[in-house]
Amino acid sequence: MDVITFGESMVLFNPDAKGPLRYIHTFSKTLAGAESNVAIALARLGHDVGWFTKLGDDEFGRYIECFIRGEGVDISRIIKDETRSTGLLFKEHFAHVNPNVYYYRKNSAASSIAPSDLDYDYIKSAKILHVTGITPALSDRARETVMEAVDYAKAHGVKVSFDPNIRLKLWSIEEARPVILELCKKADILFPGIDEAEMLLGENEPEAIIKAFHEMGPDVIALKLGKKGCMVSNGKESHFVKGYTVQTMEDSIGAGDGFAAGFLSGLIKGNPIKTCGEYGNGVGAMATLVKGDVEGLPTFDQLLTFIHKKKHIDR
Amino acid sequence: MDVITFGESMVLFNPDAKGPLRYIHTFSKTLAGAESNVAIALARLGHDVGWFTKLGDDEFGRYIECFIRGEGVDISRIIKDETRSTGLLFKEHFAHVNPNVYYYRKNSAASSIAPSDLDYDYIKSAKILHVTGITPALSDRARETVMEAVDYAKAHGVKVSFDPNIRLKLWSIEEARPVILELCKKADILFPGIDEAEMLLGENEPEAIIKAFHEMGPDVIALKLGKKGCMVSNGKESHFVKGYTVQTMEDSIGAGDGFAAGFLSGLIKGNPIKTCGEYGNGVGAMATLVKGDVEGLPTFDQLLTFIHKKKHIDR
Amino acid sequence: MDVITFGESMVLFNPDAKGPLRYIHTFSKTLAGAESNVAIALARLGHDVGWFTKLGDDEFGRYIECFIRGEGVDISRIIKDETRSTGLLFKEHFAHVNPNVYYYRKNSAASSIAPSDLDYDYIKSAKILHVTGITPALSDRARETVMEAVDYAKAHGVKVSFDPNIRLKLWSIEEARPVILELCKKADILFPGIDEAEMLLGENEPEAIIKAFHEMGPDVIALKLGKKGCMVSNGKESHFVKGYTVQTMEDSIGAGDGFAAGFLSGLIKGNPIKTCGEYGNGVGAMATLVKGDVEGLPTFDQLLTFIHKKKHIDR
Amino acid sequence: MDVITFGESMVLFNPDAKGPLRYIHTFSKTLAGAESNVAIALARLGHDVGWFTKLGDDEFGRYIECFIRGEGVDISRIIKDETRSTGLLFKEHFAHVNPNVYYYRKNSAASSIAPSDLDYDYIKSAKILHVTGITPALSDRARETVMEAVDYAKAHGVKVSFDPNIRLKLWSIEEARPVILELCKKADILFPGIDEAEMLLGENEPEAIIKAFHEMGPDVIALKLGKKGCMVSNGKESHFVKGYTVQTMEDSIGAGDGFAAGFLSGLIKGNPIKTCGEYGNGVGAMATLVKGDVEGLPTFDQLLTFIHKKKHIDR
Amino acid sequence: MDVITFGESMVLFNPDAKGPLRYIHTFSKTLAGAESNVAIALARLGHDVGWFTKLGDDEFGRYIECFIRGEGVDISRIIKDETRSTGLLFKEHFAHVNPNVYYYRKNSAASSIAPSDLDYDYIKSAKILHVTGITPALSDRARETVMEAVDYAKAHGVKVSFDPNIRLKLWSIEEARPVILELCKKADILFPGIDEAEMLLGENEPEAIIKAFHEMGPDVIALKLGKKGCMVSNGKESHFVKGYTVQTMEDSIGAGDGFAAGFLSGLIKGNPIKTCGEYGNGVGAMATLVKGDVEGLPTFDQLLTFIHKKKHIDR
Amino acid sequence: MDVITFGESMVLFNPDAKGPLRYIHTFSKTLAGAESNVAIALARLGHDVGWFTKLGDDEFGRYIECFIRGEGVDISRIIKDETRSTGLLFKEHFAHVNPNVYYYRKNSAASSIAPSDLDYDYIKSAKILHVTGITPALSDRARETVMEAVDYAKAHGVKVSFDPNIRLKLWSIEEARPVILELCKKADILFPGIDEAEMLLGENEPEAIIKAFHEMGPDVIALKLGKKGCMVSNGKESHFVKGYTVQTMEDSIGAGDGFAAGFLSGLIKGNPIKTCGEYGNGVGAMATLVKGDVEGLPTFDQLLTFIHKKKHIDR
Repeated sequence: MDVITFGESMVLFNPDAKGPLRYIHTFSKTLAGAESNVAIALARLGHDVGWFTKLGDDEFGRYIECFIRGEGVDISRIIKDETRSTGLLFKEHFAHVNPNVYYYRKNSAASSIAPSDLDYDYIKSAKILHVTGITPALSDRARETVMEAVDYAKAHGVKVSFDPNIRLKLWSIEEARPVILELCKKADILFPGIDEAEMLLGENEPEAIIKAFHEMGPDVIALKLGKKGCMVSNGKESHFVKGYTVQTMEDSIGAGDGFAAGFLSGLIKGNPIKTCGEYGNGVGAMATLVKGDVEGLPTFDQLLTFIHKKKHIDR
Repeated sequence: MDVITFGESMVLFNPDAKGPLRYIHTFSKTLAGAESNVAIALARLGHDVGWFTKLGDDEFGRYIECFIRGEGVDISRIIKDETRSTGLLFKEHFAHVNPNVYYYRKNSAASSIAPSDLDYDYIKSAKILHVTGITPALSDRARETVMEAVDYAKAHGVKVSFDPNIRLKLWSIEEARPVILELCKKADILFPGIDEAEMLLGENEPEAIIKAFHEMGPDVIALKLGKKGCMVSNGKESHFVKGYTVQTMEDSIGAGDGFAAGFLSGLIKGNPIKTCGEYGNGVGAMATLVKGDVEGLPTFDQLLTFIHKKKHIDR
Repeated sequence: MDVITFGESMVLFNPDAKGPLRYIHTFSKTLAGAESNVAIALARLGHDVGWFTKLGDDEFGRYIECFIRGEGVDISRIIKDETRSTGLLFKEHFAHVNPNVYYYRKNSAASSIAPSDLDYDYIKSAKILHVTGITPALSDRARETVMEAVDYAKAHGVKVSFDPNIRLKLWSIEEARPVILELCKKADILFPGIDEAEMLLGENEPEAIIKAFHEMGPDVIALKLGKKGCMVSNGKESHFVKGYTVQTMEDSIGAGDGFAAGFLSGLIKGNPIKTCGEYGNGVGAMATLVKGDVEGLPTFDQLLTFIHKKKHIDR
Repeated sequence: MDVITFGESMVLFNPDAKGPLRYIHTFSKTLAGAESNVAIALARLGHDVGWFTKLGDDEFGRYIECFIRGEGVDISRIIKDETRSTGLLFKEHFAHVNPNVYYYRKNSAASSIAPSDLDYDYIKSAKILHVTGITPALSDRARETVMEAVDYAKAHGVKVSFDPNIRLKLWSIEEARPVILELCKKADILFPGIDEAEMLLGENEPEAIIKAFHEMGPDVIALKLGKKGCMVSNGKESHFVKGYTVQTMEDSIGAGDGFAAGFLSGLIKGNPIKTCGEYGNGVGAMATLVKGDVEGLPTFDQLLTFIHKKKHIDR
Repeated sequence: MDVITFGESMVLFNPDAKGPLRYIHTFSKTLAGAESNVAIALARLGHDVGWFTKLGDDEFGRYIECFIRGEGVDISRIIKDETRSTGLLFKEHFAHVNPNVYYYRKNSAASSIAPSDLDYDYIKSAKILHVTGITPALSDRARETVMEAVDYAKAHGVKVSFDPNIRLKLWSIEEARPVILELCKKADILFPGIDEAEMLLGENEPEAIIKAFHEMGPDVIALKLGKKGCMVSNGKESHFVKGYTVQTMEDSIGAGDGFAAGFLSGLIKGNPIKTCGEYGNGVGAMATLVKGDVEGLPTFDQLLTFIHKKKHIDR
Repeated sequence: MDVITFGESMVLFNPDAKGPLRYIHTFSKTLAGAESNVAIALARLGHDVGWFTKLGDDEFGRYIECFIRGEGVDISRIIKDETRSTGLLFKEHFAHVNPNVYYYRKNSAASSIAPSDLDYDYIKSAKILHVTGITPALSDRARETVMEAVDYAKAHGVKVSFDPNIRLKLWSIEEARPVILELCKKADILFPGIDEAEMLLGENEPEAIIKAFHEMGPDVIALKLGKKGCMVSNGKESHFVKGYTVQTMEDSIGAGDGFAAGFLSGLIKGNPIKTCGEYGNGVGAMATLVKGDVEGLPTFDQLLTFIHKKKHIDR
C-alpha cells in the first residue's frame, strides 16, 4: 500500500434547491468524508490505497462501502457495528452564505472506533498513514485510536501525514488545540491551512508558520493558502507555489482533500517538493470544477494536462 | 379544546423507488407521527384540537411545526430544544414485505420531553387527552411525562384516550407490557388492536378481550380487527361493526390513527357507540386510499358520503 | 391583531426550466400574492397578523389556506366561494428579460370579493389595515371592498397602510391613476416605488415626491428606490436610508412586500422612522436571497444579525 | 381530406402522484381534446385529416398547435384569438374513484368559436365531418357553429359523423338532451355510448336503441358497449362485435375517441360494417394500454397485428 | 418552397447535472441537427421550408419526425431505413470547458443516405438548397449525395447555400479541406466562420478571406465573426455588421445555424445585404438566450422587436 | 477465484414512464449484462469471483467498471479499447407486452473481444469458468474467444459452466444452434431453459431433455422450468425442485442469472444437487422482487432466511 487512511464517511443528503430545508421537497443521496476523499483521489492518481472505518450494518453503510470500493480503494478492513447507525449529513444551500450542515452522527458507528479495531499489520504495510483532525473530535475512543495508529506507524517506519481539518461544529478551539498540536508534533508531513495555523499558533505570516511547525517536528510542511496556492517546505528548501485560477468554481468542498492527495502523490513518486505543491494545487483546483467532493478528481494524465494548460495560459 | 394530544413527530424520507436504499438516488420529505395523525384527522373532522411535542431548533422542526399548524391544529404549546435534533425516519420499500424503517431518533428533542414541559392548564381545558404507547417507549422521562399528564387529566375530569401502539423496534414486549397495561388501567377510552391484545393479555377472542379490558378500568373500548372492522363496547352494549372494503389500498399506515380519530369524533358529537365504530372504520378506510398518513383523511361531510355510499354498495 | 390585510393569492406554477412554455414538460406548484407575502413576513417577524380573501372551494384554495395558516397567519376570515375557482398564475423565465406571466384569474373567487364579505369587528381589532393597489384592479366589487374597508378603518382609529403596487397587466395607468391616488389620500402610511410615483405624479425627484404625497394626506411615507434603498419621512424628519448590497440576487419578486413588512414592523415596535427604513431595506434584501416570495423572509433575530453584519461589512 | 373535425383541445396538467392536489408538488404538461384525439388516431391509421379550433395567442396554444401538427394532422385552419386564453385542465387521481377534473376553460379562446370562423370550402373538401357533443356545451356561439358546420356539410354531400360525448360537468342533461338529439338527427354516422343512449332515450336495450336512432335519421350507428364491445348497424344488417380483452388497462380515457377513429377508418376504406366495428374495438382497446389519450394509438399495421393476435388468443 | 435542406438529426441525451457521465443518474431527451435547426428557424420566420434525412424505423426516428413536423417544416421526403438505427448523441457538461460529445452515429440511417434517395423534382421546386459540411463527413455515399444535390440544384437554377461546419470529431482537417473547398466553389451563398476560414485558407483577415472566397465562386458571403458580428459581401458592396451583445448566454450551440437562417430569410425577402447580416446576427443572438438549439428561435416579429430594442440600447 | 466469467455489459437507459419512447422525456441510467449479473450474485453470496470484458475508454465504460468493482467483483482483467464505444441498451415498457429493446452495441468494444485478450493464468486460477451463449453471438472473434477460453479451461482442470441464453435479436436459431450445441458439449455444468432446450433439441419433456444433454457431455444439468422451478441432475440422481412462489414480481429479468449463481454457489460449497437447485430457485426468485437485475440479489444469510420462510409458508 502507498497510503492507508481512516475516518468517518457519512451519507450526505443534498437538497434539490436552495433555501431553508423546510421548503425543500426532494433530496439526493451522495457521500462525504475527508479521509475517503483523499483515498479516492490517490486511487484515481494511480496509487494503491486503503481506507477503513466503522459502518452501521445498514443500507447506508453498504452504500458507502460499495461506492468507495467502486473507486478502486481497498476497503477490506472496514468493520461493521450492528448496534450503531451510519452517520448522516444534510446540507442547506443559500445564494449568499456558505451552506449550513445538519449532522446526525452523534454515537454513529464511526464515532465508536477504538484502538482494538486497528489492524496493525495492515498499517505497517503502508508507506504513509494519513489522518485528519476530524477523527479525534468524534469521541474519546476515536481520539485514542488516532493516537495509537500514529504512534504505531512512527514506531514501524511508516510516515505519518496529518491534515488538521479543524471542525468547530464538533469541538471548540480550546478543546481542539492541544489534541491537534500533539498530532502536528507526531506528523512527518503536515497540511495546515493558513486560518488553522493562525488558530493554533496565533501567527499569520507563512514563513513564520512554517518555521514554527518545523520546530515541532514535521519534516515536510504544505501550508494551504486558499486560492493563492501554497507554501511548501522540507526544511532544506521552501517555495511559494501559485494556485491555478479557475473561472467558475462549482463546489469548494473537497479542495483541501484533493490538495493533500496531489501533494502526497508527488512525494510518493519522488518529485521535488515544489512539484508536489503544483500537484496539490492542481488536484485541489480540479476538485472544485465539479459539484461533489470526488467527481472532479483527476487521473494522473488529466492532472498533467491541466497543469500544462494552465501554465501555458497564465504565461 | 375537544382533544389534546402529544408525542413525537419525525421528518420522514421516502425513497423514490422500491429496493435496497443503497441503490436509491432521491428521497422525498414528508412527516410521520401517530399522535399528530390523530390531531390532523380530528381537525379535518371539524374539532378544536391541540398537539404538542419537543422539536429541535432546526429546519426539520420548523417543517413539522408549519405543516401541522397549516392543517388547523393548535401547536401553541410546542417546545423548542436548542441542544437536540428533530428525529428522522427513512423507509425502505419492497414488493413482497412490509417496509423497513431506519430511525434517527435516539436522543431526539421529542424523546427528552419531561413532566416540566407540560402546560397543565392547557390539558385541563380539553374534553379528552389522547396518548399512545409510543411515547413511553422513547425514554424514562417521556414515560413519566405520559403518566403525569394522564394522572393530571383524570384528576381534573378530562377523559383519557389511549392507543397502545406497541412498537417492538423501540422496546421488547417484556419492557412494554407493564407500562402499557398501567396506561390501559388509567384510560377511559381504549383502542387496542387484536394483535396487541393478544400480546398483552394472551387472549385472542374479541368478547373475552373486551371483558378483560373493562375489568381493568376503561368505560369505552374499541377493539380494532383490521380489515374486518372493530368491536366496540361501552360496558352496557357492545357491537361488532363490519369494516368498509376498499379495492385498492395505497398505504395502510395511518389507518389505526384514523380509526381513533373517527371514533373519538363520534363520541364527542354524542353518537351511539355503534355509530362511533362506523366513523372509526370509515376514517381508517379512507386514510388507506391515499399514500401518506394524513393526505387521505376526510372532512366530516366526506366521511358521511363515503359511509353512505359504502353501505349502499355493500347491501 | 397588529396588522390585518386582504387580497388575492394565487397558485403559481413555475416551469422547471427556462424558455418558452411550449417546450417545458414539468411545473412546480407554489403560491403568490402580495398581501399574503406581507402577512407572512410580519408573522415571521413576530407579529399577530391576519389575512383573508375569497377562495374557490377547491384543492387549490385549500392549498393556499393550509400554506398561509402554516406560516402562523390568522386565516379565520377566509370565505369560500362554491361557484368560482381559485386564481392561477404561470411564469415563463428567460435568461435576458423579466419573466412572462400568464394569469388565469379572470372571474376568480378572489376577484368577486364584495363589501359584504368584510368582518368589520375584525378590522376594528387591528392596529393597522394594509391594502394594495392590486385588489381594486380585480373588479368593481373588489375596488368597492377596498374603499369600504379603508374608510371603516379610518373611521375607527385603525391606521391605513397602502402599497400602490400598480400592475399594468390588470389595468391601464389611466384606469389605475384616479383609484390609486384616492387610496393614497386615504392612507396613513404609504409605500410608493419611485417608478410608480413618477407614473402617478409626473415627478421623479425623491424630496418632491415625498412633499407631494404628504400634501395629499399620509403622515408616513416610505419611498422605495430599488437597490439604492429608500427615503422615509414622517413629516417632521426625513432620511435617505442606503440599501444593503447583496452579491447574488436569486429572485427580486417579494422584495417590495418584504420592505413594507419590515417597515411596518419597525413602526409597530415604536422605532424611529430611520430604523423602520433599515428594517424595510433589510427584509426586502433578505427576501431576494432565496427563490420564492416568502422562503427567504427572516425572523426578527435573523433580521438584526443581517443588518448588523451588513453595516459592519459596508463600513 | 378524408375527415375534418373541430373542437376544443386544452393543456392538461397531470399531478405526479395520487391524492388531493394540495399535497402535490409537481405537474406534467400534456394535452387533451376529444376531437383532436380522433384526428390524431385517423392520421396514424394513414388518413388525410384536418382539425381546427380557436387558440389563445399564447405558449399553451402554440404547444397544442405544434403537438397536433407533429402528429401529421392538418392544422392550417386554426384561428388565434389575441383576447382570450387557451383552456386548461387539471386532473386529480385517486386509487378508488375516477379522477377529478378542474377546468379553467370558461371564456377560453375555443369556447368563443363562431360560425364566421368556419372555412366552408375546407369543410366541403372532406368526405366526413366529425363533431362531438362537447362543442355545443361550450357556448351559444360554439353551438351555432356546430349546427352551421353540420348543415353546410349535409347540404354539400359531406357525411356527418357525431359522437354525443355528453359531459355533465359542462351542462345538465336537461340542457344537453334537445341539442344532442338535434345533432343525432342530422348525423349520418352516430357513436352513442350505452349510458348516453339511456340518458337520451330512456331505453337500455341495444336493439331498441339502434332502432330508435335509425328512425331519427342516421344510416350508420355504432353503439359503444364499453368492455363488452359494440353493436353496429347500417340499417340493412346489424352485428354485435365482441370487445378485445386487455389484462392491464393503463388509462381508459381516449378509448371512445379511438373507437370512433377506428370505425371511421374502416368505413372510409370501404369495409363491411362488422369489420368497422372490429377496427373500432381494436383502436379503442389499444388506446387504453398506454397512459395518455393518444400515445397508444396504432398505425394500421399495428391495428391488424393486434386484432389478429387477439382473435387467435381468444379462440 | 423557399428553402430545402437535408442532413442528419440525432436524438440528444442531456445529463441532468454537470460532471463526468459516470456519476449522472438521469438524462433528458431532445434533438440536435444543424440542418434541421436552419429549417426550423426559417419556418418560424415565416418561410416554406423542407428538410429531409434517412431515419431508422424506430421510436427515435419517429420522435425526430414528429418534432420537426410539429415546427411547421415539410418532412414529406424523409426516408425510413429498416436496417439501420437513428443516430444518438450524449453531452457531458463541465463548468470550465466546452461540453464533451459522445456520438452513437456510426452506420446510422442518416449516414447511409445515397444519391438515389434524392427527390430531384422536390429540389428543383426550391429557391435555395442549403447544405452543410457535416453531411459529407458522414460517409462516402453521403458525400456523393451532397455533391449530386448541389450539382443538380445549380443546373436547375436553384441557389446553393453552404455552411462549412467543419467537425473535427468526424474527420481530420486534411480529409475535410478538399471536400469543403469543392463545396465552397459550388456555392452561391457561403457561411464560413472566421476559424474555419483560417483552417481552409490559412488567412485570418476578414477582407482577405472574403476576397479569396469570392474568387472561388460564391456571389454572397457572410463571414461569421462570433460575438463581434459578421462581415457580409455580395461582391459589389461589403459591410462589417456589429453583433448584438447579450448579457447572459445560456447555450451557444445553434447560434451559427440561427445566423444562416436569419441571413437567408433576409435574402429571400429581398433585403440589402447589410440588413441580411443584421437578421443573421439577431437570430443567432436570440438562439443563445434559451437552452437548446431551437427553443429560442424567433418569429419575424420577435426578431424585429429584438433588433430594434438592441439598436436603441446600444446607441 | 471460485468463478471467473466474461461477457458484454452495457449501459441501460430506462424510460421514466411506460409507452412509446418518442413520448418519453427522461431516462435513468443503470447497467445490464448476463455474466456480470452472475458475478455480482456470486460475490454477494460470499464467493471470490472475477469478471472481465472489453470496454470503451469512455465515461460509460468507467461507470460499468466502478459499479461492478463496487459490488466486490474482481475486475482487474478488464481491457480498454480506445477505438470503440461501450455498448448501450434502451428499454421501452408497455402494460401488456414484454419490453422492447433497442441496442446500440454493434461494433461495441465488447464485441471486439479476441482470444489474445484472454489472461490464461487468470482463467487457470478459477475453480469454474462461466460463459453464456450471448458472447458468441456478438462477433466471430467473440465466438472464437469463448471457444478458446472454454478449451483452455477444460485442458487445465477448470470446470466449464454454460448458460445458453439464446438471444434471437442477435442471431437466428439456425445460426445459434450449432454454436450453442458445441458449447453444450464442452460444458461440465449446463443451465438450459425449457424453451431453449426445445429450440435446440426439438424435445420438451424434462427427463428426455436431461438425458439428451447428459449424452452430449455435461455432468451436471440444471434445467430451468420458469416459475415451476427446475429439474437438476448429476447423472446419478435427478430431482424436480419446486420453485418459490412470489406474489408480486417486480422484474423477471435477471432471474436466470440469479438461478445460475445460486446453483453454482451450492456446488462450490459441496452441497447435494437438490440443495443446489433450491439455492438456484431461491436466488432467482429473490432477484425478481426488486426492479433491476442485481438490486434484489441476496447475501447467503438472506438466501437461507428466504428459503426457510418459504418452506414454512408453503407447507
